[in-house]
Amino acid sequence: MKAAVFHQVGAPLVIEEVGISKPGPREVLIRTKAVGVCHSDLHVIDGSFPFPGPLVLGHEAAGVVEQVGSEVRSVKPGDHVVTCLTVFCGHCEHCVTGHLARCVSPETKRDKDEEPRLTYVQKPMPQFVNLSGFAEQMLVHENACVAIRRDMPLDRAALLGCAVTTGTGAVFNTAKVRPGETVAVIGCGGIGLAAINGAALAGAGRIIAIDMLDSKLELARQFGATDLINGRDGDAAKQVMELTRGGVHHSFECIGLKQTAEQAFAMLARGGTATVIGMLKPGLKIELDPLQLLHERRIQGSLMGSNRFPVDMPRLVDFYMAGKLKLDEMISQRIRLDQINEAFDELRRGELARSVIVFND
Amino acid sequence: MKAAVFHQVGAPLVIEEVGISKPGPREVLIRTKAVGVCHSDLHVIDGSFPFPGPLVLGHEAAGVVEQVGSEVRSVKPGDHVVTCLTVFCGHCEHCVTGHLARCVSPETKRDKDEEPRLTYVQKPMPQFVNLSGFAEQMLVHENACVAIRRDMPLDRAALLGCAVTTGTGAVFNTAKVRPGETVAVIGCGGIGLAAINGAALAGAGRIIAIDMLDSKLELARQFGATDLINGRDGDAAKQVMELTRGGVHHSFECIGLKQTAEQAFAMLARGGTATVIGMLKPGLKIELDPLQLLHERRIQGSLMGSNRFPVDMPRLVDFYMAGKLKLDEMISQRIRLDQINEAFDELRRGELARSVIVFND
Repeated sequence: MKAAVFHQVGAPLVIEEVGISKPGPREVLIRTKAVGVCHSDLHVIDGSFPFPGPLVLGHEAAGVVEQVGSEVRSVKPGDHVVTCLTVFCGHCEHCVTGHLARCVSPETKRDKDEEPRLTYVQKPMPQFVNLSGFAEQMLVHENACVAIRRDMPLDRAALLGCAVTTGTGAVFNTAKVRPGETVAVIGCGGIGLAAINGAALAGAGRIIAIDMLDSKLELARQFGATDLINGRDGDAAKQVMELTRGGVHHSFECIGLKQTAEQAFAMLARGGTATVIGMLKPGLKIELDPLQLLHERRIQGSLMGSNRFPVDMPRLVDFYMAGKLKLDEMISQRIRLDQINEAFDELRRGELARSVIVFND
Repeated sequence: MKAAVFHQVGAPLVIEEVGISKPGPREVLIRTKAVGVCHSDLHVIDGSFPFPGPLVLGHEAAGVVEQVGSEVRSVKPGDHVVTCLTVFCGHCEHCVTGHLARCVSPETKRDKDEEPRLTYVQKPMPQFVNLSGFAEQMLVHENACVAIRRDMPLDRAALLGCAVTTGTGAVFNTAKVRPGETVAVIGCGGIGLAAINGAALAGAGRIIAIDMLDSKLELARQFGATDLINGRDGDAAKQVMELTRGGVHHSFECIGLKQTAEQAFAMLARGGTATVIGMLKPGLKIELDPLQLLHERRIQGSLMGSNRFPVDMPRLVDFYMAGKLKLDEMISQRIRLDQINEAFDELRRGELARSVIVFND
C-alpha cells in the first residue's frame, strides 16, 4: 500500500510503498477513507516529540473495515469505523474502572517475535500510536476502532478520532463540567474549539474563549463561546479574573505551553479545576503557587479526553448528526495524500488550518 | 480574661490581660477548656507566616458555651463545643454546595466600625483565624463552633478542631479515598497520623507511611499504616514506586515542603491524585512534570480537610467514642496556659509533641 513515510526531523514526508500484514485473531484491517493532519504529527516532524524514522504518522482517521481476525466480534467487514490511538485491553484496572485511555497493557500490540503489522523495504516498521493513519490501509487491534452509523460522513468522522474526542472528553469525562459552571478555554485550535463546543453541550454558563488571534476568537463564538479574550490585551489570567470577578470553575489548556498551563491554574476561582490537554515539551515544568493550591484549586491532565471510546464515539456522531457538534467548520481543506507536506506547511503558519486527507475509491 | 499574647517574631508569648466583648446577635461566648498547640501557631511565632502582633494565637480548641446572642439557634449555654477556624456564612456559593471551608464571606466577622471582639490595653486587637484560642474565653460567630456529645473528653475534642479534621477530612472529603485504594502519607505528625487513621477508616488497602523518624513510623503503624518508608533510605517517591510497582492511587503531603509536595505527585500511579495539606512557605513554587500530568494524574489542595463542620464533627466524635479514631496517642502532654512557651520549644524539637493546654475550672 501507499503511505506517507517520515524519515527524519525536518524532512518532508515521502509517499512510498509500505508493507502491511493480515489481521491476527483480534485485529482489523481498515481501508482508510479520511485522516486529519494534526499538531501532534507536526511535533514529530519538527522534532519536539522525538520518534525515530522511518515511520508512518497519522492518528485521526476513519475508514471502512475490509477484513477481521477470527476472534473479532465488535466490528465486521463493511462497517464504518473511527480509529482510536489509545487502544485498550478491556480488563486491566484502568479499563474496568472506565478509564480506557490510561490502559498500558501490551497485549493490544503484536509481540516482538511475531511478524510486524507494518514493514518498510522488508524490514519491520513500528506503528505510530497503534494506528499509522497516513496510509491507504491500517491494521489495528479491534479495540482501536469503533463502528459508527453509516450516514455519518467519514471525513468529519475522522476528526472524532483525536481533536474532538480530546476536547469534548476533557469537558465531559475529565473535568465533568456541570450546567451553569463557568469555563475558560485557552487556545482556539481544533481541540480548544471542541472543548468550547463540549462546554456548550454540557450546559456551561459563561464560556470564555482565549486566543491571540481575533479570527480564531470569532470562530470560537460560533462554537459556543460567550466571552472572548485576546491574550495580546494583557495577562489572560488577570483578564479572566476581572471579567468573572474571582475566577472560573474550570479552565482548559489547549495549546501545550508552560505559560498557558500556569495561567490556566491562576485564573481559577477557589475550588476550581484546571485541566491541561496540551502536550508540553519534555523537560519543562509547570510551576504552581502552593497558596492557590491550598484554597482547594486543582490541576489535572486529560489524556485523549479520558475517553470511553465505544460509548463516547457514537454519542459524538449523534451530536453531529443532530447539529449540536460542529465539525464542518473545523475542516479548512480536503486534500490528497500526496499533498500532505503542504498541509503541514499550513499548520506551521498557525491560523485555523485543519486539513483532512481524503482517499478516493 | 487571661490570654497568651504574641508580640513579635521570635519572642516568647506573654500571659496578659485581654479584653473580650459580649456576644452580638449571632455570636457565642465560649469558656475555653482545652486548646492544642499546633505547628501553624509556631509558624507565626517563627515568622514563616507573617502576622503583626499583638495577637492571641491558638486555633484548635474545645470548650463550654457561656452565653449566646439573641439570634443564635445552633448552640445554647452549657453546650460542649469544638471550634472551627474556617467559619462559614451558610449561604454563599461555596457553602450551599457543601464546601464550607472555602467560604470567604466577611459577614461572620464584626464590621470595622463595631466594637472589636478583643482588645489589648483598650485598643482593638484582631482575632487569629476567627478564634484566638490561647485564652480563657473565645468570642466567635455561631458558625465557628459545633456542639458535641457531653461524654466526649474536651482535651481530645480540641484536636478535632484542626489537626484531626484536616487529616481525616483530606481523605474523606477532598480525595474521597475509596475502599481498597492504595494511599501514601508523607509526614507522620498530627495531621499525617490523622490522615492515616482516616485512610484506615475509609477502608483503604495499602497505607504507606513516610517519615524520617522510625519512632514516628512505628506510631503510624498503630494508626493503621500497613507499610513504612523512611525517607532517609532514598527518594521517597522512588521507594513508593518500587514497593507498589507503579505508584499509589492517593498521596497526601502533610509537612509543607516543596520537595515532599513534588514527591507526592511523583509517587502516583496513572490516574492518581496528590492532595497537598501542608502549608508551604509563601514564594515557593511546586514544579510538576507535565508528562506525568498528561497521564491523568492530578494535584489538589485541601483546606481544613474540605470540612462540612456541623456534619463531620459529630461523626469524628462518634468514631473516637467507638474506639476507631485515635486521639489519646496524639497528646504528648497536658499543660497549663503559662507553660505554653515550653510547648513551642518541644514542637521545635520535632518528634511527636502535641501539647494540649488544659484550663481547670
